[in-house]
Amino acid sequence: MSITWLIFETAGTIAFALSGALVALSRRMDIFGVAVLAALTAVGGGMIRDVLIGAVPPRALTDPVWLLLALAVAAAACAVFSFVRLSRKSRRVFAFFYNLSDTVGLAAFSVTGAAAGFYSSPQSRFVLPVMLGLLTGVGGGVLRDLLAQRVPVVLKADVYALASIGGTLAACAARPFLSGGQTAWLGFAIVALLRTCALAFGWQLYHPRPRAAKKSPVERNRPKG
Amino acid sequence: MSITWLIFETAGTIAFALSGALVALSRRMDIFGVAVLAALTAVGGGMIRDVLIGAVPPRALTDPVWLLLALAVAAAACAVFSFVRLSRKSRRVFAFFYNLSDTVGLAAFSVTGAAAGFYSSPQSRFVLPVMLGLLTGVGGGVLRDLLAQRVPVVLKADVYALASIGGTLAACAARPFLSGGQTAWLGFAIVALLRTCALAFGWQLYHPRPRAAKKSPVERNRPKG
Amino acid sequence: MSITWLIFETAGTIAFALSGALVALSRRMDIFGVAVLAALTAVGGGMIRDVLIGAVPPRALTDPVWLLLALAVAAAACAVFSFVRLSRKSRRVFAFFYNLSDTVGLAAFSVTGAAAGFYSSPQSRFVLPVMLGLLTGVGGGVLRDLLAQRVPVVLKADVYALASIGGTLAACAARPFLSGGQTAWLGFAIVALLRTCALAFGWQLYHPRPRAAKKSPVERNRPKG
Repeated sequence: MSITWLIFETAGTIAFALSGALVALSRRMDIFGVAVLAALTAVGGGMIRDVLIGAVPPRALTDPVWLLLALAVAAAACAVFSFVRLSRKSRRVFAFFYNLSDTVGLAAFSVTGAAAGFYSSPQSRFVLPVMLGLLTGVGGGVLRDLLAQRVPVVLKADVYALASIGGTLAACAARPFLSGGQTAWLGFAIVALLRTCALAFGWQLYHPRPRAAKKSPVERNRPKG
Repeated sequence: MSITWLIFETAGTIAFALSGALVALSRRMDIFGVAVLAALTAVGGGMIRDVLIGAVPPRALTDPVWLLLALAVAAAACAVFSFVRLSRKSRRVFAFFYNLSDTVGLAAFSVTGAAAGFYSSPQSRFVLPVMLGLLTGVGGGVLRDLLAQRVPVVLKADVYALASIGGTLAACAARPFLSGGQTAWLGFAIVALLRTCALAFGWQLYHPRPRAAKKSPVERNRPKG
Repeated sequence: MSITWLIFETAGTIAFALSGALVALSRRMDIFGVAVLAALTAVGGGMIRDVLIGAVPPRALTDPVWLLLALAVAAAACAVFSFVRLSRKSRRVFAFFYNLSDTVGLAAFSVTGAAAGFYSSPQSRFVLPVMLGLLTGVGGGVLRDLLAQRVPVVLKADVYALASIGGTLAACAARPFLSGGQTAWLGFAIVALLRTCALAFGWQLYHPRPRAAKKSPVERNRPKG
């Protein structure tokens, strides 16, 4: 399990660092703003997870490797961004990498959060793993969006928290039949698949809407994330 | 005390879930956004409380009943909202239920937070119960407002944090003379009464204002909560 | 060390309370909003620090002196503000005190956070002190800016987090050669100096910027902090 956990923690850290860096770059922050947002997005979910299960000080504060990884990703993103000529195509590439990194980060951290839930109290078979997976998976993104003053994607995207819950629920259900590593890969695959399908096919949940509804001015003026 | 605590935790969860759902509906979120905001508002204050006294993992993550309760409230709110025809009257009803739920949630969670303060360190007779009551009472609402990008009501409303502090202070002072349950009901009644009076009579605290003051553009354009 | 720690905790609390009060006053909040924002800014960073090292309940919730100090500062700020006639000169004075208090608070809390890191796990010689110093130093300001709906200064200001990191890194490096008190003063001086120079000389880090970039509408309309 330890090597699987390392793979997902690394993948999630890289992916969320990239998503934080991309949001910061799209907000025209300087390189330090990019570094802070990348680092916070990358380690924020894990810190929330560690605090919630009482594993303090959180690993991200005692082991520098995760922060250095996030900063390396931020530096690479800045370097690439400086050589880009903005065009319609580059915007599409930008959006693609943002969605990819956000999806991979969500899936990877959902899995590590659920695993932390399993190990911190093994008798809680569904609730704690699923909830910790959800909070770990969406936590970094929520911090990123709050600091960058965007509507948190977890509230805006139709199948986001739902993807995390679906994947960790399936992993919990499959635990008696699979090894720890297989469970983790299963959970990762389901979260990533659900989120990718939601993005690719524009899955929309039902919007409750009274008849005379119109958008509030705030919603109308808000720029696209 | 245990049954009293259960009553207030249940009332606060239902009330804050409703207030979160109403804010999400007024922001035209989809049903999952409504569910997330309702759940977070309902359990957010209690999670802050549990983390601050070291009761980890927080109860909301190990006992599914609170989340299911919040989700049931969110579902009911969505169902009702879909059949409503928007009109001036329905807006007033909407505002009434929002204020009612926010007030009940504030009062109920202030009481459970103060009780957690009593029991986690009995020698702290005023400061810890009042502060924990305040953070538990306003915590869910602050998370709700941050995620929905509103000015947190605790900063905007004149008698909000003050109502929580007044009620828990009175409960602390009355503790030597009353049973645990009576203390809790006293605190609840005072918080709810202070907040209701503030809403009903438009109680305003003093606004420090230099002479040539005018509202900043941000304040002027912001829609009413 | 204990008296040094007391000095920095007091200085940081007063300074951040003032910065929170000034932000609240510039947003035309009522006196309770000013009190809440001042108190949260003053004790927020320390609460984050205490939760992250498992020192719960946080000191700010059990010892009333820090809150009372913050409230006294808020009251003084409100009193002075009411007698001010707004003019170009008073705006400059306002900005000066905001920058001064934010700088002193950042430096003082970076030092207390780093000290908490030293003492909570002495074998972590650099990473934990620097990270805890950073989160303690910027935590209160981030909470203040989130609640007041401003872009957090840590993301906007070019040398802010960097000043905190530089000072605590130097303090960590100097630890084997200096007493605890001298280390703390060294760290404080470096953080304050770096931040002051950045403000005075307009130090800007590199902004990665593709060629056809223009500011988003949000950035253009946002009022100066």
